[in-house]
Amino acid sequence: MEKFKRSERVAAIFSILVEHPNQLFTYQAFEERFAASKTTISEDVAILRQLVKRLDSGEIVTQSGAAGGVLFQPHLNREETVEFITRIGKRIMEKERLIAGGFIYMTDLLNHPDTVFTFGKIFADRYSDPKIDYVVTVETKGIPVALATARILNVPMVTIRKNIKVTEGTTVNINYRSGSTGQIQTMSLSKRAIPAGAHVLLIDDFMRGGGTLRGMIEMVREFEAVVEGVGVLVATEEPDRKLVQDYYAMFKLISVDEQTGEVVILPNLD
Amino acid sequence: MEKFKRSERVAAIFSILVEHPNQLFTYQAFEERFAASKTTISEDVAILRQLVKRLDSGEIVTQSGAAGGVLFQPHLNREETVEFITRIGKRIMEKERLIAGGFIYMTDLLNHPDTVFTFGKIFADRYSDPKIDYVVTVETKGIPVALATARILNVPMVTIRKNIKVTEGTTVNINYRSGSTGQIQTMSLSKRAIPAGAHVLLIDDFMRGGGTLRGMIEMVREFEAVVEGVGVLVATEEPDRKLVQDYYAMFKLISVDEQTGEVVILPNLD
Repeated sequence: MEKFKRSERVAAIFSILVEHPNQLFTYQAFEERFAASKTTISEDVAILRQLVKRLDSGEIVTQSGAAGGVLFQPHLNREETVEFITRIGKRIMEKERLIAGGFIYMTDLLNHPDTVFTFGKIFADRYSDPKIDYVVTVETKGIPVALATARILNVPMVTIRKNIKVTEGTTVNINYRSGSTGQIQTMSLSKRAIPAGAHVLLIDDFMRGGGTLRGMIEMVREFEAVVEGVGVLVATEEPDRKLVQDYYAMFKLISVDEQTGEVVILPNLD
Repeated sequence: MEKFKRSERVAAIFSILVEHPNQLFTYQAFEERFAASKTTISEDVAILRQLVKRLDSGEIVTQSGAAGGVLFQPHLNREETVEFITRIGKRIMEKERLIAGGFIYMTDLLNHPDTVFTFGKIFADRYSDPKIDYVVTVETKGIPVALATARILNVPMVTIRKNIKVTEGTTVNINYRSGSTGQIQTMSLSKRAIPAGAHVLLIDDFMRGGGTLRGMIEMVREFEAVVEGVGVLVATEEPDRKLVQDYYAMFKLISVDEQTGEVVILPNLD
């Protein structure tokens, strides 16, 4: 095999790490793939470590020992984060988003890959420690953001269903009171979905009273798993007392004026 | 600003292209980002074009002119595709997946980011021409694969809902007969979701009779959009006559034996 040049090898290794965030690759895998010595690959990785630091785009983490290797932990730098959250906050306030009943049409933002993966990067960055094993959401609208977060953390996503489904096998079912409607509803999750002791991150698109998220927390506890964090895209300012206390919301919905079509959103830049 | 070395610049540019597949970046953006001349960036891109060809991992496409720039179109090479589809096919046949009613538990495979993004890469590769504008799915289980495909094609995903939702505003609603249950059901999509004339790719996780996909095709036609392709993960062999003729299924489900727990899956390597 013709040798790869340093610039080629460094680029190829970096692209593999970037395409599979938080996934550990052994030096040996790269040695074989690029027919290079361990010393050469180590030098390549050192170049990438410096590069990533300079670009402020994450961290190249190396682990030594038998199970050792290298992984890329992406990170959205402060400037990019502020620009992104501010820009999306403005978009949520666009007048034409207001629909009958005072709801805000956000489906396009929740389904646009570039936007969704930036949401995911921000959530993954906040909940990178302690190690998350599963990202859990409830159908339907939060699924893309949850998947993006799971992709970046390199862990499976779990979707709690709002109805009992025959394709899920034996399920655990939780009754919860939806904070918005006040109605009792059922959520359902396959018994196979989460092993006991797992550390999970809960992700959802919207929170008003927190009833759904409270139900999700109860569900996770039924599996004897541990909730390490709760991330939502938009939380309403009112009611101030929510059924979930400890959460991070990327945006706070201050007010909706159905008469004028005015929506006030506060981006959370903490 | 201290200059970037060639190996650093090539790696950084490649990582940006790989992280945002099928997204066009202008040369000017890279010139500014890396404080380099157009000639230098052109040389970097030429290196990447050769590298990607050698790795058989896709194509670096350059467009000249005022709206010109460079993009990366990823591709799973033949060897990787065969290995992946064969391996996942075997996993679907694992005996413990069979659940009451003859259903196969596939939720873990449908929610594992690495698996899902490889599904997406294969679908995106098949439907890269003509240009797709939207990837359309129906809730719930196909959403991750649809999002992954949309991410790679760099287009929005659209999720058809199985119930009319207040948060979607004015909707178009279609009645369809589910091929599996024989029951009439309703699917619903916000009028804002797809503009007239759009070219769409339909993605779903499972097809038996094709009733749901037939409904999705009708839905897309209501929006005066054009269906350019139908991709499903698993299609059953029976019934042979489906309500949708022209589709690609990654796996064919030949038989399920509830007595022995034996599932026969045929990977589609065409």
